[in-house]
Formats: sequence, C-alpha cells, structure tokens
Amino acid sequence: MEKKREEKKIIIEQDDREPEGLQQFATLVDKEIIFERKRMKRADYRFGKFYIERKTVEDFCASIVDGRINKQIEDGKKLIEEGNFYMVFIIGRVDKKKHNINEHCVLGKICSIVHKHEIPLIMVDNEFQFLYCMKNLYKK
Amino acid sequence: MEKKREEKKIIIEQDDREPEGLQQFATLVDKEIIFERKRMKRADYRFGKFYIERKTVEDFCASIVDGRINKQIEDGKKLIEEGNFYMVFIIGRVDKKKHNINEHCVLGKICSIVHKHEIPLIMVDNEFQFLYCMKNLYKK
Repeated sequence: MEKKREEKKIIIEQDDREPEGLQQFATLVDKEIIFERKRMKRADYRFGKFYIERKTVEDFCASIVDGRINKQIEDGKKLIEEGNFYMVFIIGRVDKKKHNINEHCVLGKICSIVHKHEIPLIMVDNEFQFLYCMKNLYKK
Repeated sequence: MEKKREEKKIIIEQDDREPEGLQQFATLVDKEIIFERKRMKRADYRFGKFYIERKTVEDFCASIVDGRINKQIEDGKKLIEEGNFYMVFIIGRVDKKKHNINEHCVLGKICSIVHKHEIPLIMVDNEFQFLYCMKNLYKK
C-alpha cells in the first residue's frame, strides 16, 4: 500500500525564486503535487525531461523590455536540442496588462516564440489552470 | 507607384463559412488586409504555405464535444507533413466560457494539441489580436 501511495505523488522541481505560495494552490489542484524547491539554472519547473518556464503577463512584458526573454528562448532551444521538452506558460491576459509596453510588441513576441523559434507556448487565465496543465503534462 | 501599393497589400484566403464581419475588423487593424472568400477544404485562413485554424473558445469547446477538433488536428498534421505551416488560434478566455464542458477537458485538449501533436497554438483575447497576429505572421 505504501508503495502505491508513493507512485501517485507528483514531484516537480521548482526554482526557489518562484513564489512559495504556489505550493498551496498546487495542493488544491491535486494534493499529491509536491514542489521540490532548488536553484535551477534553466527554466522554472522540471520533471524528467520536461522543462517549463512560467511567466505572468507582467513578467513577460518586463522580460521583453529588458531582453531576458531572448536569453530564456536561447536556453529553451538548447534544452530542446539536447532532447528535452521545453514549454513556456504565460498566465493572465494581454489585454489587461498593466505594463506600458505596446500590446503589439507583446503579441509579436508571442508569434515569434511560437512560429520562428518553434517553442510550445500555452496561455492560461490563472495559476490554477497553469498547475492543472502541468499536472496533465506530467501524467502523459 | 501603383506597383508599390500593390506590394503592400496583405491578401489572405478566408473560408466562406468564417464570419464576413471580420473583414471590417481587419481593415481597422490594417487597411491593406484583404480577405478573399472561398470554400476551403482545410483550415480557415491561408497565405502562401501558411494555414490557420481560427476558433472562438465556444467553437473550440463544441468541437471537442462533437469530435471535429480531432479531424482538424489530423488535417493540420498532414499539412505540416506536406511542408506547410499550420497553426491554431483560440479567441477568448477559457475561464469565461459559456459551454458546459468541464474546464479541465478544455485545458487537457490544449495541452494535447501543443505537446502531443506538436501543433503551434496561440490564445488571444479578441479578434483584433488575432488579426494583428495573422498580419505579423504574414509579414515574416
């Protein structure tokens, strides 16, 4: 019985700069999700060969302005070249962003990530949807 | 001068079952966008080797329930195998959907399209964002 319980656990590495509060949300999505916090060099979440970058819309806008997103795209492409899966999640709505960056710049960058760089990207409305999708990908 | 004007035009084939009103929105995004309405066998929009499937969140939910989405995914994968680009756009928010399908089914299908089937998918908030993205991809 103990072994069966252990198998159900969904253990995901989480960068220790990600919000700690996400563990509580994750437990509400599925009480078997456990984040192992550690300093990650690339991406924000990892399980097996799966690497996930999580960005709120505001983070995403800021990372376009300061250029961080370009480095993250390059890191992601390297991970894919090395045989891993890499995905970007954006949480929130572009049309409700507070950042003063032009909306067209944000949409242009999304098109570039998906089309030019061929990096899978999913946009969700809230953290619960993000956590549910991560669980869904874990179970595949 | 006439030739230069002609070169600026953004001519996109549009399936004649798509809403006609989108031409008016498109003109507001860029007055050079012209839809050529015709009956399309695969996808809803096409320019060159680029094929785009456009779905509102409500359409997307309905197509999961009646299974249409699976055929469209297969058509899309064939287009990609034949050397084309194929993309899905979803317009609207999953958390505001009126369709009574479970939200997790919708998110699961999105994950499956992006991860399992490796089909690029972009979610936008409204038709203007969709049309801007299509123009952006056209110009690339």
